[in-house]
Amino acid sequence: MIDVAVNGYGTIGKRVADAVKEQDDMQVVGVAKTRPNFEARNAVEQGYPLYAAVEDRAERFEEAGVEIEGPVEEMLAEADVVVDATPSGVGAQNSQMYEDYDVKALYQGGEDADVAERSFNAAANYGDCVDCDSVRVVSCNTTGLLRVLHPLERNHGVGKVRATLVRRGGDPSQHGRGPINDILPNPVSIPSHHAPDVRTVMDVDITTTGFKVPATLMHVHSLNVETSASRSEVLETLEGESRVRFLDADDGVESTAEIKEMMLDEGRPRGDAWENMVWRDSVSVDDGELYLFQAIHQESDVVPENVDAVRAVTGYEDGDESVRRTDDALGI
Amino acid sequence: MIDVAVNGYGTIGKRVADAVKEQDDMQVVGVAKTRPNFEARNAVEQGYPLYAAVEDRAERFEEAGVEIEGPVEEMLAEADVVVDATPSGVGAQNSQMYEDYDVKALYQGGEDADVAERSFNAAANYGDCVDCDSVRVVSCNTTGLLRVLHPLERNHGVGKVRATLVRRGGDPSQHGRGPINDILPNPVSIPSHHAPDVRTVMDVDITTTGFKVPATLMHVHSLNVETSASRSEVLETLEGESRVRFLDADDGVESTAEIKEMMLDEGRPRGDAWENMVWRDSVSVDDGELYLFQAIHQESDVVPENVDAVRAVTGYEDGDESVRRTDDALGI
Amino acid sequence: MIDVAVNGYGTIGKRVADAVKEQDDMQVVGVAKTRPNFEARNAVEQGYPLYAAVEDRAERFEEAGVEIEGPVEEMLAEADVVVDATPSGVGAQNSQMYEDYDVKALYQGGEDADVAERSFNAAANYGDCVDCDSVRVVSCNTTGLLRVLHPLERNHGVGKVRATLVRRGGDPSQHGRGPINDILPNPVSIPSHHAPDVRTVMDVDITTTGFKVPATLMHVHSLNVETSASRSEVLETLEGESRVRFLDADDGVESTAEIKEMMLDEGRPRGDAWENMVWRDSVSVDDGELYLFQAIHQESDVVPENVDAVRAVTGYEDGDESVRRTDDALGI
Amino acid sequence: MIDVAVNGYGTIGKRVADAVKEQDDMQVVGVAKTRPNFEARNAVEQGYPLYAAVEDRAERFEEAGVEIEGPVEEMLAEADVVVDATPSGVGAQNSQMYEDYDVKALYQGGEDADVAERSFNAAANYGDCVDCDSVRVVSCNTTGLLRVLHPLERNHGVGKVRATLVRRGGDPSQHGRGPINDILPNPVSIPSHHAPDVRTVMDVDITTTGFKVPATLMHVHSLNVETSASRSEVLETLEGESRVRFLDADDGVESTAEIKEMMLDEGRPRGDAWENMVWRDSVSVDDGELYLFQAIHQESDVVPENVDAVRAVTGYEDGDESVRRTDDALGI
Repeated sequence: MIDVAVNGYGTIGKRVADAVKEQDDMQVVGVAKTRPNFEARNAVEQGYPLYAAVEDRAERFEEAGVEIEGPVEEMLAEADVVVDATPSGVGAQNSQMYEDYDVKALYQGGEDADVAERSFNAAANYGDCVDCDSVRVVSCNTTGLLRVLHPLERNHGVGKVRATLVRRGGDPSQHGRGPINDILPNPVSIPSHHAPDVRTVMDVDITTTGFKVPATLMHVHSLNVETSASRSEVLETLEGESRVRFLDADDGVESTAEIKEMMLDEGRPRGDAWENMVWRDSVSVDDGELYLFQAIHQESDVVPENVDAVRAVTGYEDGDESVRRTDDALGI
Repeated sequence: MIDVAVNGYGTIGKRVADAVKEQDDMQVVGVAKTRPNFEARNAVEQGYPLYAAVEDRAERFEEAGVEIEGPVEEMLAEADVVVDATPSGVGAQNSQMYEDYDVKALYQGGEDADVAERSFNAAANYGDCVDCDSVRVVSCNTTGLLRVLHPLERNHGVGKVRATLVRRGGDPSQHGRGPINDILPNPVSIPSHHAPDVRTVMDVDITTTGFKVPATLMHVHSLNVETSASRSEVLETLEGESRVRFLDADDGVESTAEIKEMMLDEGRPRGDAWENMVWRDSVSVDDGELYLFQAIHQESDVVPENVDAVRAVTGYEDGDESVRRTDDALGI
Repeated sequence: MIDVAVNGYGTIGKRVADAVKEQDDMQVVGVAKTRPNFEARNAVEQGYPLYAAVEDRAERFEEAGVEIEGPVEEMLAEADVVVDATPSGVGAQNSQMYEDYDVKALYQGGEDADVAERSFNAAANYGDCVDCDSVRVVSCNTTGLLRVLHPLERNHGVGKVRATLVRRGGDPSQHGRGPINDILPNPVSIPSHHAPDVRTVMDVDITTTGFKVPATLMHVHSLNVETSASRSEVLETLEGESRVRFLDADDGVESTAEIKEMMLDEGRPRGDAWENMVWRDSVSVDDGELYLFQAIHQESDVVPENVDAVRAVTGYEDGDESVRRTDDALGI
Repeated sequence: MIDVAVNGYGTIGKRVADAVKEQDDMQVVGVAKTRPNFEARNAVEQGYPLYAAVEDRAERFEEAGVEIEGPVEEMLAEADVVVDATPSGVGAQNSQMYEDYDVKALYQGGEDADVAERSFNAAANYGDCVDCDSVRVVSCNTTGLLRVLHPLERNHGVGKVRATLVRRGGDPSQHGRGPINDILPNPVSIPSHHAPDVRTVMDVDITTTGFKVPATLMHVHSLNVETSASRSEVLETLEGESRVRFLDADDGVESTAEIKEMMLDEGRPRGDAWENMVWRDSVSVDDGELYLFQAIHQESDVVPENVDAVRAVTGYEDGDESVRRTDDALGI
């Protein structure tokens, strides 16, 4: 069994912990959190040993009646791999600690690429990451782009890629984030940072532009790819990817909120949409250019990638098999 | 076993079906739907016999490859009780059909009170509804008000009640509904319809005012009640109600979105908040007046009430025991 | 003086009336409206003769104490040109009436292209529309695209054009429109209707994709154009267009709401942004492809175009001079 | 002429400057700002001498090509009165500087009451503030409450007051503020701070509760007042207040966005609604209790109050006449 610790038990961390728990070759040896809120209580109820991410806040847990096992360092001592799911930039601050405790480290896409030996995406470069001391699982949007682009490249080759990302302003419970009624080019400069982030994993000629809008549920991409593949070839290729799912006209799903409703109806934990959700009717090829729309669930699409990354850094060599195991365990 | 049919498999209907399924004294004999979308597919996957709510649309199910058992009338022939969860006003149109098939009927709060023999709330008037041929389960907001007011009246007596209801503009997946960036007195005239609706079940001097705002998750109430009870008496009384739940400061839950996050973390189906969610810190009594804030989940708070109403109309006499059974089965 | 009537005194109609009033070669002989609300009162206060757009609703104006001159037909009898600013589809129903009264007719972009002899954009095809009996002023988004594409084509030639349109869900006061918290590919099929609409006026190889988001203020475009022009050439060309305005970094304008704030500060009537608002920092040219972001004010960008179209259909031949007169009168 | 300086040229400051400019007994001798954005340019275009609010940022204005007169201290040396419209809490930091320059100071409602000699509302306590060295113009919501409560108290007496305030999350251009899709009791504890703030100006038994919602345009109040006045007496009293305006059913105004639309149509600068906007149909009296709904424009309702406060602190004794002059000059 691979012993996995999760540092940062928020949006990503709690989902990764639950996904690790479902696997038969790994287990959660602890989760660390900074504040004793409902998520901390939930961690305890899930049976996860709870640690204080910031030592001098440990007493706040006591005051709130939430029992903790000790400081985060004790958690690291128990772990083979730590998944750092702390806020952007904190991961980099933690990296020395992980090295000191000689634990393999997974970082999230909010960190700069140089925080880790390699950036990681299961479909694109699992093999390159086997036995690395640290990897960075690329961000939700980058993951979503790679899941489509890499299979297309592998099967048909791709030329220029142009993507417009319409991004949610904040996650559902982040009530301090806006905008309330606005649309922002974000960033104003072109390309956005997503294009170079894709290239940390895959060699492709890509330009991305981004907007921020007053929505909380999912990101949506308008994707344009130069390719020699026909529409049916594109569909066949993407239908072969377990982490790409098609929305059919008969589903009557016109929006990100309806995707979430469908996921909740299906009984997915937290209504999570782990896969890229591609509108089949949007897939069109004209004059050597593919267009499609896909929705990306920012809270969960990197979760199965983190599970695979745990296997990769601990030396499990077969990426395809890892994806299969992860997906089977989650019910993808 | 009580055989329950659900006519209208949307927001409320699908939740009631799932809740009925969890009970050991009733079962779902069928659900009826007008359109073959993802919810229809989900009904089939859940194992619910699916019927066409509108006969001449039956072929649309076939075209979509969704198998149906037959028209809604065949479903009624199998049922002891039908839960009508169709859109507002359609229930009234269906009532003759339910009579013709001699099936006990439950309506939702979108219907006028005279659609049924009685209006129903488990805490307030279960006993009055035993063996009725039809009852109307009052609306989400009215249910939320009754769950607090009736226990207070029973234990301490209440004088005037004044409530301001800040209502969501639409449910999460109703993307055609607004407002996008606006606040509406709704209705402009005072009192809103909620006050008379409360009085269909409970005799109380109440005035309600309502607003509509650009949010989809929950309603929130600011409640003011003249009462002789002290704060601790109020807390003790409401803590005795299984369908009233308190949010404590340590939970760190400041908003409706955080309530939903907590429910999803707890593994609630669809993240449903079946109970009134009362902020403990808001409960205050000053000069004979109680104030409190509560959040009401419009998609699910009437679900356990519907289950109890099924028992009531089929002659099960012990309301308290019904509530206990319902809650135990659901995990409230 | 050209006598102009405005049929439909809502979002577009009231703005066109006010813009016509500012010109020294035309005047408003009447505006027609269906309901006696605050806009009707305002029309009277502005000194516009008010007519009932629907004859049998005339008495509602009387009841509300709003004086009307008579039915819409009487207004047409006074006019050289009628600007139809009724809701989408109503214009087509009105076209026979306009013919019967032998009045030149301007339609808006919500109508199908075949409602009129030609589709119109001042920058692109003013000359083609001189003396036409009817023209359709293309929609806000199409107008916004043409204002950039036509000058680029004229000066440098353009190849393929790809545009993603992030569209507001409704206008500020349309509180019945959603979505509240959602992103919709709209339409799901690619291309959206904007590409063929551009081609009603200009011959160009363009593909457009569209989204609908919970915002009310402006649309925003991510535009990609194959061109041989350099960045400085693009800037020079677009700076020569009076209806394209650049947002500079020093302005500190990051969003559509800040554009509106700036317009209000400048004293623009209703805070209108008649011009395309282009973020200068977004303009980039790489490997023969131009990228830029622009915001389009759906309520007002077609207003100066309507004024020019009035001149065109009444035989004023110099399009450049018309644009200059319109802009001077408005203060663009 | 009273020489007025405005420190902080943002949402409130720029409106106060423009309102002062319209008066015939006062003039703007300068405005101070921290950043050289579009508002700074607009100040220059309006002819306001521009000063750097923070001295060591002066060079940023130069870099942006915006000419400044000097540091804020030089502006104070020119002024009889300074209107501090800086962000909450900064006013208190500035107070020593204002004393040092021996300039009368007006603060805004975001400051604590003890920042100034007295809190101010034109209708409620103008007389008490004559010749004060400093006053605090109470916040938008408090101003809105006082404009209704004080006349009612004066004419009919009022008993208990209960108000629920549904507050906008941020101003239109504050895109960093949320919530996007949420409702928050704000604060969770009852009463909110508005009740004690009302009592800084008027002696009344009031309890307030507040919510924050995803809207940017206006606040809305549900107001409940114990009073012996009849509905017609209430209407007569409030119709006598120039800063209370009624929305009639014939206006067809159902929401805050439609109020803003009406203000823009009327040609109000920035579409400002300086008055409380009360829905006439909501005004109801039952069993000794008045109910009404009113909308409060957070960006502008304190603007005329600031103008009156300038007169008060400089010794102009007749409050009623000041209100009349202010309103006439603005066109209220």
